[in-house]
Amino acid sequence: MFSRISANGRATGLFLLLCIVTAGPLSAEPLVSWRPGATRDAILEFVNQVTTPGSSSYVPPGERIAVIEHDGVLIPEIPRVQGVFTLQRLRTQRDRHPEWETLMPFRGALEIGERFFREVDPETALVVMAATHSGLTQSAFRREVQSFWRTARHPAHGVAWSRTAYLPMQELLDLLRSQGFRIFIVTAGSADFVRAISQDMYGIPPERVIGSQVETGLVEEDGQLELRRIPGDVLLVDGAQKVLAIDSQIGQRPLVAVGRARHGGDIEMLRYSERLGRPSLQLLIIHDDFERDFALFDEDPESLAAAARGGWRVVSMRWEWRRLFAFEPLPEALQ
Amino acid sequence: MFSRISANGRATGLFLLLCIVTAGPLSAEPLVSWRPGATRDAILEFVNQVTTPGSSSYVPPGERIAVIEHDGVLIPEIPRVQGVFTLQRLRTQRDRHPEWETLMPFRGALEIGERFFREVDPETALVVMAATHSGLTQSAFRREVQSFWRTARHPAHGVAWSRTAYLPMQELLDLLRSQGFRIFIVTAGSADFVRAISQDMYGIPPERVIGSQVETGLVEEDGQLELRRIPGDVLLVDGAQKVLAIDSQIGQRPLVAVGRARHGGDIEMLRYSERLGRPSLQLLIIHDDFERDFALFDEDPESLAAAARGGWRVVSMRWEWRRLFAFEPLPEALQ
Repeated sequence: MFSRISANGRATGLFLLLCIVTAGPLSAEPLVSWRPGATRDAILEFVNQVTTPGSSSYVPPGERIAVIEHDGVLIPEIPRVQGVFTLQRLRTQRDRHPEWETLMPFRGALEIGERFFREVDPETALVVMAATHSGLTQSAFRREVQSFWRTARHPAHGVAWSRTAYLPMQELLDLLRSQGFRIFIVTAGSADFVRAISQDMYGIPPERVIGSQVETGLVEEDGQLELRRIPGDVLLVDGAQKVLAIDSQIGQRPLVAVGRARHGGDIEMLRYSERLGRPSLQLLIIHDDFERDFALFDEDPESLAAAARGGWRVVSMRWEWRRLFAFEPLPEALQ
Repeated sequence: MFSRISANGRATGLFLLLCIVTAGPLSAEPLVSWRPGATRDAILEFVNQVTTPGSSSYVPPGERIAVIEHDGVLIPEIPRVQGVFTLQRLRTQRDRHPEWETLMPFRGALEIGERFFREVDPETALVVMAATHSGLTQSAFRREVQSFWRTARHPAHGVAWSRTAYLPMQELLDLLRSQGFRIFIVTAGSADFVRAISQDMYGIPPERVIGSQVETGLVEEDGQLELRRIPGDVLLVDGAQKVLAIDSQIGQRPLVAVGRARHGGDIEMLRYSERLGRPSLQLLIIHDDFERDFALFDEDPESLAAAARGGWRVVSMRWEWRRLFAFEPLPEALQ
């Protein structure tokens, strides 16, 4: 196994780069599910600019960082996947927690159901999530989440949640990855929840998922150190906290940022990816596809104003995405 | 630029793997600066076991995570590189801070010099570091640190600090990387300090450096969002905090962990990498090379006891490393 080892890491990097550049059989049309038009052209043009050596906008591979929200950007946001999971845990645990029948916000969640997680503020939703997701060890929690992703079904689309990734976003990830970008999911949702499936759904390893977290404590079990989830403070990674988390965990300013208009929690992240006098790419996803997915009629006006000021691309799912999901029949234009 | 794009990330990964396996011209003897013997054999045997498909100890590439302390493991710990940098900033800033002349611990650092940072507890050292490293924006701080690594010289070895990486550890990184490991530096020192040089010195990108951090705040400067370092709380990533940081940022249990005996701050990290009934690798570096580098005669007894209990490999720099630095003349056995 050891006969072929590079003299140093950079030599390997260079060699892998050569492999990518000469990789004939893997070619495919990029962003095929995006409708031809201004947004698709802008993405292709931007990626071309920053990856063409010699171009005045060239960015070295080490600085090609993309940050992408999860809920509502990589998968549908209605219903919220973690809300559905939380409700399931809330219902199976309610016998052991009679206080939940009267105590808010637990009583509200039990009475209202999944809609509760959409209508309350993120902090309140996290209180219920933290309480129902604690007590377990990290590895037991991850196993349970993984099984949920594969077995629970999206109520409207009828497929397992692990199959609900938006196809145009998958294609964007593939395009960026093929051009040397390191892609990070930066989500107001739970990091652990997304990590359980990130490699399988998006080809993104767990360490490239940044998100909200509950406290954990180190305990000794069967002679081995384990981490146990503690009901307590939750670090909510939303708004400005997204930028602090990006700096603390990535340590570089991103070059590409993708968020959604709802709540306004992605404004700071998208603004932080702007580079004075140098190209960068911001996409703001708008949920207006009431036929194929869902539509929100209360998109955040501040996000839209920030997009106008910053020259961000506002992406209409209804008009710019020809196909939303891999399980959808191929539209005529693509047959 | 878009003619060669993979259908999905896993296909690219597989293809890159094929590239590595068939990479003829890069072959080299692994761990050539390690003296042949039990430790070198154990490392090679372990890596062979976990990477051989079909072996009962096989570990899939996704789970091949290595965590490695920085100070005293990847570079010499005496003097402490960040201590030298901090002292430099303390001296250039003392005119603006007359209170430092009387106020501890600043007065102690100014009077005692670099030895101060070795003799006080890590919390106290961090107070001085946090105060002298704050006020700047993150990007200005990183530029200053980068210039320090390249221009300041190690007082005993007389070369730039960026050339003081231990060669046997560089070879271990190369070996692990060539076998699909993702390598993380997990240090009680400052994450930002190591990130400034991690790619160039070790081929490890900034996002794979986990370490102690000062607070930052989001500010608007010239119409762009910037992060400014705030003198305040410091998160010290040592002892059990290393395990919490590994879980929070990597989200997986490591398979390989390398620490040093001094202080005992690596015990929990090495213990956390142990896997009940499954192979894992722990190395504990001992500083006993008083001729070529330095020797500590107060190695932490608890670390040594934990090593004995856990079956960790205790690595004597003096006896097991044939060559310490790339700038050292090649020993006869290697000529």
